[in-house]
Amino acid sequence: MGGPAYTRLEVDERRRRLVELGARLFARYSYDELSMARIAREAGISKALLYHYFPGKQAYFSATLEEKAAELANLREPDPALSPPEQLAGSLDAFLGWVDANAAAYAKLVRSAAVIPEVREIVDRVRDQTARRILDGLAPDAPPPPAMRAAVRAWLWFMDGAILDWVEQGDLSREQLRGLLLGTLEGALSAAGEPGALRG
Amino acid sequence: MGGPAYTRLEVDERRRRLVELGARLFARYSYDELSMARIAREAGISKALLYHYFPGKQAYFSATLEEKAAELANLREPDPALSPPEQLAGSLDAFLGWVDANAAAYAKLVRSAAVIPEVREIVDRVRDQTARRILDGLAPDAPPPPAMRAAVRAWLWFMDGAILDWVEQGDLSREQLRGLLLGTLEGALSAAGEPGALRG
Repeated sequence: MGGPAYTRLEVDERRRRLVELGARLFARYSYDELSMARIAREAGISKALLYHYFPGKQAYFSATLEEKAAELANLREPDPALSPPEQLAGSLDAFLGWVDANAAAYAKLVRSAAVIPEVREIVDRVRDQTARRILDGLAPDAPPPPAMRAAVRAWLWFMDGAILDWVEQGDLSREQLRGLLLGTLEGALSAAGEPGALRG
Repeated sequence: MGGPAYTRLEVDERRRRLVELGARLFARYSYDELSMARIAREAGISKALLYHYFPGKQAYFSATLEEKAAELANLREPDPALSPPEQLAGSLDAFLGWVDANAAAYAKLVRSAAVIPEVREIVDRVRDQTARRILDGLAPDAPPPPAMRAAVRAWLWFMDGAILDWVEQGDLSREQLRGLLLGTLEGALSAAGEPGALRG
């Protein structure tokens, strides 16, 4: 291996570690509490080097979010060998487990989505991708009927609201939450005129 | 009636008209497009006089939102002579009619809720009040069970998502949307272990 390739690996690896550190920092501190100087100090590098990787705090924050969003997208990737309801239940389990493990970060994410346009864009994109994936599973061969599309898209809002309630109130079990989410999706699809959609 | 009382009436009336104008302006222009100078020009008054009523653009925007929120809260006030499902269907009808008549303003409101903390606060407050009102109807004599509370609160998120889809896509009738909303609430309450809650 030549020198430049090795250097490139080092650069990528340092960037990866900075992004990992970001996920911890932004879970512990609010966005306003962190400055580039403080992030550099926490990372044990110079501010100049930090700026070499990220042009500013918002870019750094976005990079950590992108990373978490990619982690989530992979989690939600369903196993094609399972039936649609099993796939959905499995993806939900994985997702709720992830939220459980990242509860503080998740609550901060949802709250910062309210005030930072870049965060909002990422949240919207993940929601769109998830809606498309579920709709592809429910109506693989044609564009979904409008009521089915509205049901699935709105259900993802339901999910955000239910998870926020779950994280903030702490009096529902994960099984209760999962049952609420799956049962509500069934109810929404029935109301959209697709009562059997989840059973494939 | 003495002079000061008459002046006070004039002041209130001018403020009311400015707030009304604000609802139209913020529906037509984005928040960034409007300046205090432009608002004063549209109102046909001096900038100094506008500042006499509102300390800045954000305060003016908040006042127009408060006004719309109050209008909405009154609309949603249910008729106690009706059964709970009739009350809910009636409130929903009134609300969806209001959204229909204010579609552009509503879409701007939901979008600006994403980026302006003051707007977010108002949206959150209206959502909380509505959740409390529905829960009071469903469980009048006791605090609601956690799963019922989570179902109703998350359903209000579902409603925001479904209405945004409805306004943006324009391919669902108001009756379809209403059916989707009511059916989903029934499904969510069933999933929360309260299958008969809506039928009182």
